[in-house]
This record gives sequence, structure tokens and C-alpha cells, in this order.
Amino acid sequence: MHTDILPTNFGKPKPIVAVTMGDAAGVGPELCLRLLAEKSLHGTAVPLVIGDSDVLTRVSKALKIPLTALKLNQPPLSLDRPAVYDPAGALPGKAVQPGVNQAICGRAAARYIEEAVTGCSQGWYVAMVTAPISKKALNMGGVDFPGHTEMLAHLTHAPNYAMLLYSSEIACAFATCHQSLRSVPDSLTPDRIADVANLAFNAVTTLRGHDAKLCMLGLNPHAGEEGLFGDEEIRILAPAKNKILERGIAIDGPLPPDTAFTPQARTRYDCYISMYHDQGSIPFKMLAFDTGVNITMGLPIVRTSPDHGTAFDIAWQGKVRPDSFFAAYSMAVRLASNYFPGPRAII
Amino acid sequence: MHTDILPTNFGKPKPIVAVTMGDAAGVGPELCLRLLAEKSLHGTAVPLVIGDSDVLTRVSKALKIPLTALKLNQPPLSLDRPAVYDPAGALPGKAVQPGVNQAICGRAAARYIEEAVTGCSQGWYVAMVTAPISKKALNMGGVDFPGHTEMLAHLTHAPNYAMLLYSSEIACAFATCHQSLRSVPDSLTPDRIADVANLAFNAVTTLRGHDAKLCMLGLNPHAGEEGLFGDEEIRILAPAKNKILERGIAIDGPLPPDTAFTPQARTRYDCYISMYHDQGSIPFKMLAFDTGVNITMGLPIVRTSPDHGTAFDIAWQGKVRPDSFFAAYSMAVRLASNYFPGPRAII
Repeated sequence: MHTDILPTNFGKPKPIVAVTMGDAAGVGPELCLRLLAEKSLHGTAVPLVIGDSDVLTRVSKALKIPLTALKLNQPPLSLDRPAVYDPAGALPGKAVQPGVNQAICGRAAARYIEEAVTGCSQGWYVAMVTAPISKKALNMGGVDFPGHTEMLAHLTHAPNYAMLLYSSEIACAFATCHQSLRSVPDSLTPDRIADVANLAFNAVTTLRGHDAKLCMLGLNPHAGEEGLFGDEEIRILAPAKNKILERGIAIDGPLPPDTAFTPQARTRYDCYISMYHDQGSIPFKMLAFDTGVNITMGLPIVRTSPDHGTAFDIAWQGKVRPDSFFAAYSMAVRLASNYFPGPRAII
Repeated sequence: MHTDILPTNFGKPKPIVAVTMGDAAGVGPELCLRLLAEKSLHGTAVPLVIGDSDVLTRVSKALKIPLTALKLNQPPLSLDRPAVYDPAGALPGKAVQPGVNQAICGRAAARYIEEAVTGCSQGWYVAMVTAPISKKALNMGGVDFPGHTEMLAHLTHAPNYAMLLYSSEIACAFATCHQSLRSVPDSLTPDRIADVANLAFNAVTTLRGHDAKLCMLGLNPHAGEEGLFGDEEIRILAPAKNKILERGIAIDGPLPPDTAFTPQARTRYDCYISMYHDQGSIPFKMLAFDTGVNITMGLPIVRTSPDHGTAFDIAWQGKVRPDSFFAAYSMAVRLASNYFPGPRAII
């Protein structure tokens, strides 16, 4: 046995990180196979892929990625090596077509998430990492959530949660997320924005090791130009800023969104508080597309994901870059690592 | 005389480019002084700064930038060298304070623009370049336009116009611009989007020298995720795309806005059609803050400007980078140059 290529605690039970396979027709199966094969990531914790054994086997053969993980049909209480757990009846029929929205895949993706949440809540797993789902397939499968974030908040009864996109280069927290642009202005309240800033401050301070400096973005062009293009900066964002400052958290803004992300401006901030999805995700994906991690803040469990979608156009083709998925896995281990073996939210 | 440092047509009348000083309390005066002093930009055309002589003299002395241009109190019909034209009574009182919104500055800024438009319309000037104005000061001065673009369209009776942010790196045209985010969805129509795409195609094709490939951005996150987060992509953007394709213009989309600007995606497109201000201006200013040019498409005159604002915080301090202003001036000369000596819109 070559001990230099095996973790020193080989054979001993390790903390388990649940990894949901996501939509079977997307890039999730390939990402899970690559993670299971990436021994450098099995040191301090082990991945438990929750997904469909047959789909994984099909993709494994098609792409010649070895699948040597343990196969389980029950949630494990203890593991010393990577494994796949296929919940009974999750994906019936096995007629999955890659690259196509299918109701059975949507329902199965939801089931994998529920299993992971159950395991995290029970203390079996220390964190969960989610491969991409198709919101359309979820919807076709009768599961009415706009995304992972909202579904996880529902399943864990979290009253106060938000999405954080994080990389070493740039971080953005979101006051609103998966909803129409039209509905954004009326969804913003001073309390919501202050709560998101609070979550972001705690998370990014933990991740960066120093008090995070926040930047609040305006909602309107030029941050409303003193009320000329919309009054939300005056009515909602200014009171939100006061609440945040009262909590002892340093924050600038609301800044004109388009000048807040210039290279010079970015050096001043650890995290942006974005008023809507694309305001933060456009600059984030420009700078950190392959390395960014999506973290759900405010849950009683640790959850991360890559910052990309199902990529149906390259599903099952061996073309997906696993960098963001690996970064999400490593981040989950890091976030959970101070709290082994129990399931605790650190953010 | 050192002929090698003088343009070969020195002493002969040259095409005149009107340069409005913008808000006197902002960085406009310094930018104008730097342009007047930059001999490399006085070769094929000459700048005529339309602004306040006293303010320019004050800033010239404070920053030690020589002011040797001709001083005029009438619009010139012919020029062979840089000049300053100070319209009588434009800035009364002379009590301008740098860095502060003042009604007199707003009114004066509007007057400079009107003078430039008159000169361009009369054929005295071949193009106009505008230094930044403060929309707040404009408003305090009783001038009710949200920005240059709208004011110029009004003054030239242009029914169909749009803003283009242009650099060699990235270009964005805007279906809506200086208005609240709340008002955006109801301002979008298939005709408006198709007209903007048409203007953008013509402009960028001219500037790049090949048929421009356009990308239409979605309005909603994930481009609406097939109607789950807003239906504008289905109701408005899809019909707009059909109209554009019917005109023989190639366009992709509507694309999820956040993945449309990744480095890989950017290689595929010459110009983005943005549904609202920050959607295009966030990525544009990240990539081209110091070199970007703002072009108003659809006017009967050529007009460009830098892509930054009044920068009150550094006004009259010698700290402004003139790159974007110089780029705007060079672009104006270039856009007008095929059409000397008359005032013609090429885009």
C-alpha cells in the first residue's frame, strides 16, 4: 500500500459531506463522478453523492470516468471512503435523456435535496453541496420552488436567509434573488436589506479573517441621482443603511451600481449588497465564473453550490469544468470543519 | 517654426468640433483645458470649447494648465486653432463653487449644449463632445431632462435614438436608460427594442468594419427561466427578436444576463442590447472605465461624451484622468470625418 497517496486517516470514519446530483439530464452526474474520482478532495471529509446509480454508471461508461465508490441504498451513518446513496424510487423508469427538461428529473432532484437536508439535520452529514438543478424541470415535476435557496429555507424552516456568491476576488450578497425584475422594488424593505447585510458581514468576516467592509448598491441608475430616477434609495435604502450602522457594521452606499465594480472601487470592499440578482451576478460571473461558490447564509445547515447552471448544452459530454464544483465542495468542508461532527450553521 | 510638431494644414480653416464644458463645478473645466492643451488632438479638426472663460481661467491658474486658446464671444464660422466660446450671460454671477450642485451651473450647462446643437445643426461644427453635467444641478436650474441623451433628442427632434457605450473591448446599446428600475418593464416594447438593435447594428458595423453580431440580454434573472421569473422575455423580447431577424440582422438571445458577459461569451458578440441602464453599464465600466465613449445614436448630429460623471469629489483638483474624454473627442472626429464639412449623422 502506497501510504503517501492515501490520507493518513484512511479506514477511519470521516465527516460526510452530502453531494446532491442535481438534475440528471444536466452536468451534475459528470461533476459528481469527477468529485468521486478526485482523491485530493477526500482527505478531511468524504463525499456522499446522493443520486441515481444507473445514471452515474451510464455517464461513467460514456465518459470513461471510473466509478469505484461504495453503492448504498440506505443513508450511511458512518463512512471511511466516497460513496453513492441512491434513494429507493427517486428516479423511476430510468429513461433519462441528457440535455432535456424532464419531470422525472425535476422530482428526483428535489428528492436528493430532501435526503441531504434530512441527513444534515440529523447530524449524519456535516454539510451539503448541490449540483445544478433545472428550475423548469422542478416545476414540471410539480415542485414549486424558484431555486435551491428557497427550497432549502423552506425545508429547514429558516426565516431569514440569503444567497452569497463568494470568491477570493469578489463577493456579493443578495437582498432579492430568483424573482422577476418587475417584482424587485416592492420586495425591498429596510429590515430585509439590513438582515442580508448582517448575514453577509458575519459570513465574509469569517471567510476573510477580518471585519468585512460592505458596499450597498443603489437600486436605480446612478443610485437614483438624488431621487430623480426612483426614490427607493431615499425611502428604503437610506433607512436600511442606518439600521446596519446601528448594528456596528461598516457600510458605504448606496453607490451608483455601475461605478461600484470598477477595478479601483473593488479594492475597497469585501462584499457587495446587491438589490437584485443580475446586479451582483453579472460582475461576479465576469470575475469568478469558474471558481465562484454559492453559499446559502442563514440556514441551520452548511450548504454550498457551484455558481453555474445545468448547462444542458454540454451535459454528459465530458466538457464541463469542475473547478467551481470542487471549490464549492472545498468551501463546504472549510465552513463545516470548525464544527465537526455536528451539523451547525456558522453563518 | 518646427513644422514637424505642427499639423501640415496649420493656418488653414479646419472642421470644428464643439466641446461643451458641462457642469462648471465638476471635472468639465479641467477636461476642457487638458483637451485644449493636447496638440496631438488638433490635427484634422480643432476643438471649440463652449463654456465659461472665467471658470476656465480660474482652473487654469489653480492647476497650472496653460490656456492659450482664442477667446470668442460669438460662435465662429471658421477656425484654424483651438478656441473658447463663452456665450453672453450663460453663467452670471461667477460665484461657482467646485464640487457643489448649483442652479446657475445647471442652467449654464444646458445653454452650452443648446449652443453646440445650434452650431451643429447650422453646419458650423461637424460634431459635439459633451463634458459631464449634473442632472441634479440641471434640475435645480429648472431644466427638466434626465440627461444629455434625452435633451439632445428633444433639441434635434429625433424620434428614435439610443445610448451606445463603446470601446474596443465591449459595446452596449440601451433599450431604456435614465429612468427608475421600477419603470423599466413597462417601457419595453418589441418596436423599441428592434429600433435600438437596428441603430446599434449600423453604428457598431461602421465602427468595427464588419457586420456586427448582436446579443439581446434578458430582462429577468436567467432570462426569465422560461417564464418562471417574469414573462417579458416571452411577451416582449421574443417578438422583438423576430422583428430584428426580419430586418436581416443577426442576433442571439435573450440570454441570461449574468452569463452573457463572461470572458468566453464576450468573444462572440460585438454589441449587447441592454434592457436597462446598469445591466450594460456595470460590465462596460468594469472593462472600459477610462477609455469608454458614450455615443448618442439616431441624432441628426454626431455627439459623443466620456462614460463618467461630474466627479464632484475631485473637481478642479488636477486628479481627473482625461483618457475617456480624449477618446470621446477622437471618436467624434472619426465619426464625423467621412462627412466633412457638413453636419451629418452616420449612425
